[in-house]
Amino acid sequence: MKDRKLLMIPGPIEFTPEVLRAMGMPTASHVAPNFIEVFGQALERLRAVFLCPTGQPFVVAGSGSLAMDIAAANLVEPEDKALVVNTGYFSDRMGAILERYGATVTHVRAPAVGDVPALEEVEATLKKGGYKVMAFTHVDTSTAVVVDAKALGALGLEYGVLTILDGVCSVAGEELRQEEWGVDVAFTASQKAIGVPPGLALVVAGPRAMDAFSERRVPVGSYYADWANWLPIMQAYEERRPSYFGTPAVNLIWALNVSLGQILDEGMDARFQRHRRLNQAFKAAIQALAMEQVPVRSAVAANTLTAPYYPGGVDSALLGHVKEAGVIVAGGLHPEIRNRYFRVGHMGVVSESDILATVGAIEKGLLKAGYGFEVGAGLAAAQALLTQ
Amino acid sequence: MKDRKLLMIPGPIEFTPEVLRAMGMPTASHVAPNFIEVFGQALERLRAVFLCPTGQPFVVAGSGSLAMDIAAANLVEPEDKALVVNTGYFSDRMGAILERYGATVTHVRAPAVGDVPALEEVEATLKKGGYKVMAFTHVDTSTAVVVDAKALGALGLEYGVLTILDGVCSVAGEELRQEEWGVDVAFTASQKAIGVPPGLALVVAGPRAMDAFSERRVPVGSYYADWANWLPIMQAYEERRPSYFGTPAVNLIWALNVSLGQILDEGMDARFQRHRRLNQAFKAAIQALAMEQVPVRSAVAANTLTAPYYPGGVDSALLGHVKEAGVIVAGGLHPEIRNRYFRVGHMGVVSESDILATVGAIEKGLLKAGYGFEVGAGLAAAQALLTQ
Repeated sequence: MKDRKLLMIPGPIEFTPEVLRAMGMPTASHVAPNFIEVFGQALERLRAVFLCPTGQPFVVAGSGSLAMDIAAANLVEPEDKALVVNTGYFSDRMGAILERYGATVTHVRAPAVGDVPALEEVEATLKKGGYKVMAFTHVDTSTAVVVDAKALGALGLEYGVLTILDGVCSVAGEELRQEEWGVDVAFTASQKAIGVPPGLALVVAGPRAMDAFSERRVPVGSYYADWANWLPIMQAYEERRPSYFGTPAVNLIWALNVSLGQILDEGMDARFQRHRRLNQAFKAAIQALAMEQVPVRSAVAANTLTAPYYPGGVDSALLGHVKEAGVIVAGGLHPEIRNRYFRVGHMGVVSESDILATVGAIEKGLLKAGYGFEVGAGLAAAQALLTQ
Repeated sequence: MKDRKLLMIPGPIEFTPEVLRAMGMPTASHVAPNFIEVFGQALERLRAVFLCPTGQPFVVAGSGSLAMDIAAANLVEPEDKALVVNTGYFSDRMGAILERYGATVTHVRAPAVGDVPALEEVEATLKKGGYKVMAFTHVDTSTAVVVDAKALGALGLEYGVLTILDGVCSVAGEELRQEEWGVDVAFTASQKAIGVPPGLALVVAGPRAMDAFSERRVPVGSYYADWANWLPIMQAYEERRPSYFGTPAVNLIWALNVSLGQILDEGMDARFQRHRRLNQAFKAAIQALAMEQVPVRSAVAANTLTAPYYPGGVDSALLGHVKEAGVIVAGGLHPEIRNRYFRVGHMGVVSESDILATVGAIEKGLLKAGYGFEVGAGLAAAQALLTQ
C-alpha cells in the first residue's frame, strides 16, 4: 500500500507534480528577470481565471484571511454601512473584519444552517439605502452552501453598492464570471481550487472598487493590507519592471504561475463543467448511502465540496476509519453543528479516480462504524453518473 | 559552466537542499498529526534561535513587512508615543507603520547615511518621558549598518519602554540574545538568515510585550495582524492540538522547521562566530580592492551583509558583469545614495567557498568595468583571514 493518503479536505488540496516542483526550485531573486516574467504572467493569468479582464490583480503573501482583510480594509472607511449576506462561519468573519475597519454591519441571515438568505430579503435591505458595500461568501467552506453570486452581483449594480465576493472555496472550481456578473472584488487563497500550497492571498478588484479606493478620505486601517503599498508593485511586475515593497513569496508565485497555466490550458468552462460533473457523482454516492447533507436543497449545494451529516449511530470516529482506508476528509467547522457532520473537498485537479477512491474509503469507514448499508451502493451511484 | 548563479543578495539567500525538498513535498493537511508536530517543534525552535526562552513565538504567512506590522499593530494604541532609532529605509517604514496605528512618532536620526544615532541622544530623548515603545532596525538592509541592540535593550528596560527590534536582516546571523538583552519584540522574515524561501513573518514577543497587549484599551487596528486571532493557534500547535484560524503555510512551515533544526545543530554561538569570520574576510577583500563602504566605521558595520560604494569610474553596470561571472549581488536601496553603491548578502548557510566565489566575481566585474586594481588582491585579503 502507498504510504501517502489522498487529501480530500476543502484545502489544502492535492497539487500537481509540476506545482510541487516549482515549490522546491532554488529560489530566484525577487528582481531576477525570469522571476519578473513569471510574476507578470501570473498576474495576467489571474484576470483570465477570475474572468475579470479589466480587473486589477493583487498577489500578497498571506492566508485567505488576509485576502478578506485586503478587501474589507481597502473598501470601507469608518462610518460606512456594510451588508453581509450571511451563510455561516466565514460570513460572520467578514462581518467582524468590516467592523474592525469602522463599518456598521447589517447581516441578512439564512433562515437555517445550510440555507441561504432569500434574494428578496437582501433586496429589501438594499432598498433602504445607504450601503457602501455588500459582502457574501460564494461557497461557505463550513457548510458547503453556495449563494447565487450572479444575482447578488446584479443587485449590487442595481443599488449602486460595491460587491465583495469571498471566493476562497469557489474561484477556479465553482462557476464565477467576475466582470460579467458585476462583482467588484473577488478573492481566494492559493491552497483551494487554484491549486497551490497555502501562503498566497489572491485578490482581483474591478474598476469601481479601485475608484472607491482612490477616493478614500482616510488611510486604510491596516498597513500590510493597504493597496497604496501594493498597487505600484503589481503594476511594475505586470509591466515587467523590477520593483520593491515587500519581498514576494518567490517559490509560491512560481508555483502559482504553473498552476494558473494548467487551469487555463483546461479552460474555464471545461473546468466548471468538470467540477459540476464530479460533484454530481459524489453527491449521488452520498445520497445512495442514505446520508443527509448540510445544504438544505441541491440548488444551494456547492460544486467544490460536500458536507454530509453523519448517519444514525455514526460519529466523528468515522474520519479515522476513512483515513485508514487511505483518504483524508475534514471534520465539521460550523459551531452550531460541528460534531454532527464532516466535509469532503473535491476541487482543483480532482479526478474521477479520486471521487471513486473517496466514496470507497467512506463506504469502508461506514462499515467499520457499524452503519447498515448496501456495500458498493455509493460507488455504483457515482459510477452511473461518471459513465454517462 | 553551471547555469545557476550564486545568490548573494540580502534575501532571498541560498537555501539548503533539505529546505528546498521540504518546500516541494506533497502538502499535508494543516491539522494532520505529523504537521501539528512539525509546527509545534518549529515554534519551540524559534525560541531557541531568538534566544528568548520565555517568549511567545508567532509564525504567520506574510512578508517581513507583515512582521513589522504585527509588532507595531499589537503594541501601540492611538495617542501612544513611539521613538524610532532611525538608521535608514526600514526605520522610516517602521515609523510610518507606528503612525498608521495611531502613535505619535519621534525619530532620533543618524547624523549621516551609514551612521547610527548616538546612544546619548537616544537616552536624552527617552528621559523626556512618555514613550511606550522604542523601535530600531538591528541591521538596516539598505545600508548594512548595525545598531547596538544590547545597549538599546538596556535603555528600554531602564526607562520602562517596550523595545521592538527589526531583526529581518539579523536574526540567526548577527548576534541577538533577545531575552538577555531585554528586547521585548523581535522579528524576521523567512528568506533571510533563517534560511527559508520568502512567505513567513516570524515574531517572538517577550512577557512584557504580551502583558501590554493584554492590557490594550482598543482592538488592534489590523485584523490580520491581531495577536488575539493568532495567540490561541500558536498555543494549540505548541501543545500539539489541532486548531484553526487561517490555514498555515504548510510547506513553508515544514521548511522552516528543517532550517531551524539545521541552525540549532550548528549552535547559535558557532553560527554568530561563522558570520563574523566570513564577514571579516569579505570586508577585508572589499578594502583590499580600495572600495569604500556605506557604514562609516567598522563598529557600525553588520556581519550579515556588506554595502560597498562603486569605486571611481564604476557604476551599476558592475552588477551585470558580476552576474556574468556567476554571482548575483543587489543594487542600492537607500534613496539618498541609491545609484552610488551595491549590496552583498552573506548570511545563512553562506560558506568560505561562497565568499571566495563572490570576491572573485566582483574582481572580474571590476576588471570589465575598467577599474584599475591588482587582480587577486581581494581574494588574497579574504584568504589571509580564512586561513587564520
